[in-house]
Amino acid sequence: MLKTPYLLFLGDAPDQLAAKVAQGIKDWRPEFSLGQLKLDGCKAELGLPNMTIAEAKAAGAQTLVVGAANRGGVISDAWIATLIEAIEAGMDIASGLHNLLRDRKELVDAAAKAGVELFDVRVPTVEYPIADGKKRTGKRCLAVGTDCSVGKMYTALAMEKEMRARGLKASFRATGQTGILITGSGVPLDAVVADFMAGAVEWLTPDNDADHWDLIEGQGSLFHPSYSGVTLALVHGGQPDTLVLCHEPTRTHMRGLPHYQLPSLETLRDTALDMARVVNPDVKVIGISVNTAGMSVDEARSYLAEVEQRMGLPAVDPFRDGAARLVDALG
Amino acid sequence: MLKTPYLLFLGDAPDQLAAKVAQGIKDWRPEFSLGQLKLDGCKAELGLPNMTIAEAKAAGAQTLVVGAANRGGVISDAWIATLIEAIEAGMDIASGLHNLLRDRKELVDAAAKAGVELFDVRVPTVEYPIADGKKRTGKRCLAVGTDCSVGKMYTALAMEKEMRARGLKASFRATGQTGILITGSGVPLDAVVADFMAGAVEWLTPDNDADHWDLIEGQGSLFHPSYSGVTLALVHGGQPDTLVLCHEPTRTHMRGLPHYQLPSLETLRDTALDMARVVNPDVKVIGISVNTAGMSVDEARSYLAEVEQRMGLPAVDPFRDGAARLVDALG
Repeated sequence: MLKTPYLLFLGDAPDQLAAKVAQGIKDWRPEFSLGQLKLDGCKAELGLPNMTIAEAKAAGAQTLVVGAANRGGVISDAWIATLIEAIEAGMDIASGLHNLLRDRKELVDAAAKAGVELFDVRVPTVEYPIADGKKRTGKRCLAVGTDCSVGKMYTALAMEKEMRARGLKASFRATGQTGILITGSGVPLDAVVADFMAGAVEWLTPDNDADHWDLIEGQGSLFHPSYSGVTLALVHGGQPDTLVLCHEPTRTHMRGLPHYQLPSLETLRDTALDMARVVNPDVKVIGISVNTAGMSVDEARSYLAEVEQRMGLPAVDPFRDGAARLVDALG
Repeated sequence: MLKTPYLLFLGDAPDQLAAKVAQGIKDWRPEFSLGQLKLDGCKAELGLPNMTIAEAKAAGAQTLVVGAANRGGVISDAWIATLIEAIEAGMDIASGLHNLLRDRKELVDAAAKAGVELFDVRVPTVEYPIADGKKRTGKRCLAVGTDCSVGKMYTALAMEKEMRARGLKASFRATGQTGILITGSGVPLDAVVADFMAGAVEWLTPDNDADHWDLIEGQGSLFHPSYSGVTLALVHGGQPDTLVLCHEPTRTHMRGLPHYQLPSLETLRDTALDMARVVNPDVKVIGISVNTAGMSVDEARSYLAEVEQRMGLPAVDPFRDGAARLVDALG
């Protein structure tokens, strides 16, 4: 979908966190990441070469990716001149922000004139089918969480990286805008119309080689009342052979819902397996991915050991430890 | 949303089945159903007075409802003159067909001139919120099915009718286009964007009197891989106090999916309860609604008796028997 390589546009990002999309691209797809472009006042830094539009174009950049958010997640007026310069140099523009490139007339006009494309990756552009639930060839692994934002994308990307390093066939399948910008394609599942959610996931994870693994980015949680329907569409559309349970142990309540507790890992395991067996009776949980960012090294070690013993499954923090043991467990 | 009473437009419906939307309105909302309008070749009959547009207008009709489908579910060219006549007489037009009133320029122009509205009830018009899962006042009953099209809408409507006949406070809450046309309002849930599904159901079933029951139309099935995400959004957004299990015992496979078996009533009960307890720990299954249209009277009797004994819950066919025993069981 998106043409690579990228120039990563950081705009006037007020801090490093505001550039987390660009950071994700640089971390997971360094081969796509030619350089960075900062405006006055930018406080983020990727450690990539600083490039002007002309330098990026000369180096082969095909797409300028908006890799930063300012307050409100909008396209800033301060960015427009640079975006138009990139368009006029013949580069596509890609953004995952809430307000859309296509709603800025000056960008639309410039893109039409230059013959380049504007990609708002938050908005579906494909007419997805209704899911048919037919068995597909190849293997699929889905990350499911006790809550939203517990490391499902990170886990799937870390497993893909480990598998590719071993020479195995693996494809991260993005289902949210950050993942789509990182890999250049995917389905913005939370923006798909209800009837087509599961079909969109089937479309994203089609027939493949028998020894190929799709590593599917999870969304939401079966236990998060706001988004659980999206998660179940992933479980049924994704037809997983294996599940990885994702958890953040310092979370005191469901994200955004102070009146909801997180389920236990055991409850998540049992419910996710029950639902996934509808489409694949042989599905298994193969491991647990824990985001231990909120713990000391010692706390994390002891927590992971306790979970591993209790659940009888490998329990790792892929950020601290890598995903090798999860890949080993794929079977 | 829709203004009542209605003139039910049957067009050139080739048979009675093609007029099932109009039949549903007449059966469940006779007080909305002033008359019928048939074109040449119409083979459907509601047993209502035949009315011209002028007669319907004089009798007080506020909305012409397209109550029939021709082959393909499209708005027929043969209908246009009549629809424009209704618009010019000052009536709104409502339709649940796949192709939209708003896409016919002659209808849009006539409606703008006459100052009336075109309602395509298949398309959401509300900006629904993200669900917050907060406990709401009043009571809610949700129909869940072993499959699609097993009588969930019929069950909820029959329970509403029985409750109103007893002087109880009850509101059928429509989640599909037929239900919306019948009652004049609702949410076309299968057309809502994924992130807002559960929020749309919360919006549809807001705080209410402590002794008021929402009878929520179910959609899909937790076990139907094409639509299960929509169903889970209903379970979590609907925050049910009670569930009614709906089943069609002669079905040999999941609707549209010959390679999928239906779950047992026991499996549906356990899974639906597990999921519903996330939002309401006190939720109960109170009965079973069986569509026995494919069975003889004797077969139906014996099947219902067997299910009732096996499940320890009232099992009725509301079409044959009414919904009194389900209402008794609401508690």
